Amino acid sequence: MNINVIKIGGNIINDANALQSFLKDFALLKGAKILVHGGGKIATEVAAKLSVETKMVEGRRITDSAMIDIVTMVYGGLINKKIVASLQSLGTNAIGLTGADAALIKAHKRPVKTIDYGLVGDVDEVDAANLYKFLEMGLCPVFAPLTYSPKHGILNTNADTQASEIARALAPKANVSLTYCFEKKGVLRDVENDDSVIAEINPELYAELKSEKVIFEGMIPKMDNAFAAIGNGVEKVIICRADDLLSSVEKKKTGTRLVP
Amino acid sequence: MNINVIKIGGNIINDANALQSFLKDFALLKGAKILVHGGGKIATEVAAKLSVETKMVEGRRITDSAMIDIVTMVYGGLINKKIVASLQSLGTNAIGLTGADAALIKAHKRPVKTIDYGLVGDVDEVDAANLYKFLEMGLCPVFAPLTYSPKHGILNTNADTQASEIARALAPKANVSLTYCFEKKGVLRDVENDDSVIAEINPELYAELKSEKVIFEGMIPKMDNAFAAIGNGVEKVIICRADDLLSSVEKKKTGTRLVP
Repeated sequence: MNINVIKIGGNIINDANALQSFLKDFALLKGAKILVHGGGKIATEVAAKLSVETKMVEGRRITDSAMIDIVTMVYGGLINKKIVASLQSLGTNAIGLTGADAALIKAHKRPVKTIDYGLVGDVDEVDAANLYKFLEMGLCPVFAPLTYSPKHGILNTNADTQASEIARALAPKANVSLTYCFEKKGVLRDVENDDSVIAEINPELYAELKSEKVIFEGMIPKMDNAFAAIGNGVEKVIICRADDLLSSVEKKKTGTRLVP
Repeated sequence: MNINVIKIGGNIINDANALQSFLKDFALLKGAKILVHGGGKIATEVAAKLSVETKMVEGRRITDSAMIDIVTMVYGGLINKKIVASLQSLGTNAIGLTGADAALIKAHKRPVKTIDYGLVGDVDEVDAANLYKFLEMGLCPVFAPLTYSPKHGILNTNADTQASEIARALAPKANVSLTYCFEKKGVLRDVENDDSVIAEINPELYAELKSEKVIFEGMIPKMDNAFAAIGNGVEKVIICRADDLLSSVEKKKTGTRLVP
C-alpha cells in the first residue's frame, strides 16, 4: 500500500480561503492518505474570550487543565470536524480523530525539566494495525494534534511530531511518504529569496546547512522530525508550500525532498 | 451480533461525578455497544462567554452559524473526547464520532415551517455497513449529537432521535437493544411518585397513557422515537435511570421496557 501522510500547519488553518483551497487539492490526491492538522490561533482567541490566559514558551503552548479543555474543543471539535465536513463535501471519506479515539496515539506527559509544559504529550506508540484497517475501508483519517495518556487523558501534542510518528508507525508494512505543508516553497538556501528552494537534502547536507546556519530556529525541530521519519523506514519526506501540494507530491516538481 | 445502543442525556453530562459513575457502568456492559450523548448546558455557558446568544424554542436550540461552531466545539470536541478518554481509561476501546465522520449519519437541514431551527438536521441515512465494521474491530462508537449534510455541513441533531436512527439502521443484521438513560427510574404512572415505574409498555398501552395524560410534554417525542425504533426491527427499548444501566439492561430488573 502507498500512503501519503500530509501535515498542514496553523497558518493555513487560520486562513479560511487558503484552507479550503488546500483541502480541494488534498481531496484530489490519489490513494491512501492521512491528514494531520495543526492548531492555529483560534485556540488563543477562544481562550482569551473564555478568560483563559495563553502562555507560550519558545513558541510552544503551556497547557494547563483549562487550556487542555480549550484545545480539545478547538482542535478536536471545531477545526477537526470542519475539515472533515469540507473533505466529505469534496468527495474524500474523512474521519476525524484524536489520539484518544481507538487509543490510536498513546503518549506520556512530558517530564518537567527546566520548563513545565503541563498537559503536553510525547508520543509512545501509534496503533498502525487499526490505521491500516481504516485505510483499507477507504477512510481518510484526519488527526487533530491531540494524543492520549492512560494516566493524564488527552494531551496537547506538536502536529509535526505527530505526523512523523504516524508515518514511522505505518512504514513497516507500506510505502509511506510524509509531506509537511507550510507557507514557504520549501527549505530555502536564502531565507530572503523565496525561489532559493533546495531540491534535495540528505543527512550530510542537513548537517552542513545547520552548521552554516542556513537552517536555524524553528526549522530545526521540523527537520529533525523529518529525518527521524527517514531514518525509520519512511520513503521520503517532502517540505513544500500548501499551494504546491499536488505539484510537489504527485508531479515531484516543487518543494524540498529529504532523502536517506 | 447483539448490539446495545445507549443514549445518555444532557443532565448526566452536566454532572461530572454522575457522568463518571455512568461511564464506569457503561464500560462493564458486555458485547458490542454504542453510546450516543446529548449536549447539556456547557454549550450554553460557552456561548454566553463567547457572546453568542442562546435561543430556545420549545426546549430546542435554534442553531445559527455562530451556534453551530459552538456545538461543534463543545459536543464534538470537549464532551465527546472527554468521554472517549474516560472510557479508554476504563478499558473500553471508544472512538468519538459525529455524523460527518466517515459520513456515518447523513441528514438534511430541517425545512422551515412555523419555526426556523437553523442548522438543525433531520436524519436521512445511517451507514450501518461501516458501523458494523467498527464494532467487529472491537471499537465502541461514541456519537456526539451532530449529523452531516452535503449541502450545509455539520448540523445539530437531537440525541434521542439520533440514537433511535442508529438502532434502526443496525437492526436488519443484528439483535439491537436501545436504552435511553435519564434522571428518572423509568416511565412513571405518577410523575410525583418515583417508584411508580411502569415495567412494560406496548403501543396500545402507550396510546392509553397519552390519552390519560400520564405521558405528556417532553416524554412524547422521546416515546415516539422509541416506538419508531420498535416498529423498525429494534428488539426492545429500555427507558431507565442512568444509575440503573446495568440492572436495567443486563439484569432486566429495573426501568421501563417498550415492546411491540
